[in-house]
Amino acid sequence: MKPVKVGLCGLGTVGSGTFNVLQRNLQEISARAGTAIELIHIGARRDNPACDTSGFKVSRDIFAVVEDPEVQVVVELIGGTTVAKELVEKAIANNKHVVTANKALIAEFGNELFAKAQAQGVCIAYEAAVAGGIPIIKAMREGLAANRIEWLAGIINGTGNFILTEMRDKGRDFADVLKEAQELGYAEADPTFDVEGIDAAHKLVILASLAFAMPLQYDKVFCEGISNIQPIDVKYAEELGYRIKHLGIARRRDTGIELRVHPTLIPHKRLIANVDGVMNSVLVQGEAVGPTLYYGAGAGDEPTASAVIADLVDVARAVANDTSTVPALGFTAEYLQDQTILPIDAVETAYYLRMSALDQPGVMNQITQILSNAGASIEALVQKERQSSAQDYVDVALLTNSVLEADMMTAIAEIEALESISGEVSRIRMESLG
Amino acid sequence: MKPVKVGLCGLGTVGSGTFNVLQRNLQEISARAGTAIELIHIGARRDNPACDTSGFKVSRDIFAVVEDPEVQVVVELIGGTTVAKELVEKAIANNKHVVTANKALIAEFGNELFAKAQAQGVCIAYEAAVAGGIPIIKAMREGLAANRIEWLAGIINGTGNFILTEMRDKGRDFADVLKEAQELGYAEADPTFDVEGIDAAHKLVILASLAFAMPLQYDKVFCEGISNIQPIDVKYAEELGYRIKHLGIARRRDTGIELRVHPTLIPHKRLIANVDGVMNSVLVQGEAVGPTLYYGAGAGDEPTASAVIADLVDVARAVANDTSTVPALGFTAEYLQDQTILPIDAVETAYYLRMSALDQPGVMNQITQILSNAGASIEALVQKERQSSAQDYVDVALLTNSVLEADMMTAIAEIEALESISGEVSRIRMESLG
Repeated sequence: MKPVKVGLCGLGTVGSGTFNVLQRNLQEISARAGTAIELIHIGARRDNPACDTSGFKVSRDIFAVVEDPEVQVVVELIGGTTVAKELVEKAIANNKHVVTANKALIAEFGNELFAKAQAQGVCIAYEAAVAGGIPIIKAMREGLAANRIEWLAGIINGTGNFILTEMRDKGRDFADVLKEAQELGYAEADPTFDVEGIDAAHKLVILASLAFAMPLQYDKVFCEGISNIQPIDVKYAEELGYRIKHLGIARRRDTGIELRVHPTLIPHKRLIANVDGVMNSVLVQGEAVGPTLYYGAGAGDEPTASAVIADLVDVARAVANDTSTVPALGFTAEYLQDQTILPIDAVETAYYLRMSALDQPGVMNQITQILSNAGASIEALVQKERQSSAQDYVDVALLTNSVLEADMMTAIAEIEALESISGEVSRIRMESLG
Repeated sequence: MKPVKVGLCGLGTVGSGTFNVLQRNLQEISARAGTAIELIHIGARRDNPACDTSGFKVSRDIFAVVEDPEVQVVVELIGGTTVAKELVEKAIANNKHVVTANKALIAEFGNELFAKAQAQGVCIAYEAAVAGGIPIIKAMREGLAANRIEWLAGIINGTGNFILTEMRDKGRDFADVLKEAQELGYAEADPTFDVEGIDAAHKLVILASLAFAMPLQYDKVFCEGISNIQPIDVKYAEELGYRIKHLGIARRRDTGIELRVHPTLIPHKRLIANVDGVMNSVLVQGEAVGPTLYYGAGAGDEPTASAVIADLVDVARAVANDTSTVPALGFTAEYLQDQTILPIDAVETAYYLRMSALDQPGVMNQITQILSNAGASIEALVQKERQSSAQDYVDVALLTNSVLEADMMTAIAEIEALESISGEVSRIRMESLG
């Protein structure tokens, strides 16, 4: 069988990991693909000391790779959505299959790219775009093919999870841990993508399309970051038997699809509540299989390379057998259908609320009454004793049952307007994931 | 595209689950396969009230299904290794693809069946044979294709895990929980397969072949059950920060492959230590990706059906595209190579030991000396105070570092021969899984 010829664009962290794993395990990888995989062209603006590319054809102009008539599969690992998009479009136009780790590209431009690829008879594989080395795309697209997916919830940003884990384990505050994460290289100098949930939203929208057979709708994801989480909330959550995780959640409702990234209280006994540090995990509820969970490294050179190369093996096998791979979003393109994405106001969840309340009779009654009017009952409550007799206000942290977000926001405004309440009410959504 | 025609043999628990899920989600499933999937013939010795098979062709002679010239894919869900083997062989001989949930059949006869299928140009798919609804075969065979697998460890028998979970949570003893498990239907009337690890060994040998590119070698698995686990060992393990799980472990060593099923102490902070009840989980250490973990229901009608149907979608897609599926064990058949399976004596692990020792000076010195001669040092120790002054013996529970099993067995015999030791030494292997 003729070898399948591969071009690699980008020799950064993931690019070098892919190069090195491919060289190291080439024999085993080819035995899995059932065909030799041959890296014939590398496009990289500069060398990476982590890779010995001597003996390989290297172009400084990465577009030389997609214009190389010998290349059958282009591996795009440059990131971003400008040059990368142009590169992938050229590759498709030149009849080359594409493997990419680029979550922003897929989340924001996947619909048009998939359509172009299909028209051209090539594929776009993107296992590495979500949750790094965890084979979650394959699991959802093929492994759970029997299931109507009911919901999924994922820890899909390692930086955010590292920060929340440190806050919990050591009682540190957000800014302090973020600084350390930046020093360790876990967080970027501009951490917005990670801590405000944009990176997680990119990944969530991909998982949701796979789950619910709908085109990608990145602009519809509700997104709330973790920068407002206070150590005291982490502590009260633990006291109440919960843990705060930054989750991407997608759920099928009768009225539409929930698509949201936000800090979430989850019962500490859930397996996913115990996924710590930079690790990623996705919990998927299938209607036949029940809950399944997938865990592993969500980033890093070789973990991400693991996913890139798994795609490469799938694509190489298809090329060698002159057939096609599984459709990009799991379903035949004609089956995909836009669905209503619920605005956050229309989402129903349980809530954790923390407020500073005057320590006097009747105050709890007022709060309970307002919540009750919103359809919320109090399921659990922590009320702290006064720290000193000079202090009139005490912390009240409580958990409610599931109510409509719009109603809860109204209730919170009413509670904040009470004379017996000082300052704002902290509000974190809560999910049982059961 | 012409529909792919399927015959279903067996309407027991998994058969009825498969029938029902397939009917319920047929449209979505066909949209995933890219071709209609049509169930045209059911073979079942008797009806199952859980399935409405009216309108379907049902034969009481299941062999009628594999002789049906219209059937392209046979789903074997009758279990066992006698009739099922004959059925699968006939199906292959008649050029039909096979999907099966039969772990015993694959573990014990997979090599010859895969060879026959390959010669005939058909495939045998068996996702449901290991860990029920968890798509672990696909993950290992495709999702982790880039990796040289270093080791794997799995909770792959739900009954055993349920028993150990109950023993821990409620301090109950083995026989008591087993009886309840039988009443709940989790355990068979003859529980040997589950509690002695035979079922887990079937699954482990399949995972090991996928991991290490070797033919199935079921007769080489070392197997130790959980029936000797005492509540006191569960308790001491917890005190030492560990949890006892019945694991299937496969590990690549320079000298060969470890292949073993036995109760194992693992650190309670590991995610897999928190997999409770009847749930299954497999932890796989890949050299590029690091640790990945997969969790879900390991048995049950619809969870297992989920895996059966995922296979069916893969096979239907291949049939519709006139191509082949991924090779049965992930690698091209020529690449598979027998490897030395290490006898248990040659395995190196850490140990938990519990003994009843005379409460007097010098005894611990003797024990330490014997262990030291075997190359084992004591890493942690729990020594209980005497319950009463009339009692001369106290419980000593200790953890050692990693040593050769043969050396440890010698050391244990020497410890048991000490006059200061009463009765036998309890020994449970221990793994850090780090």
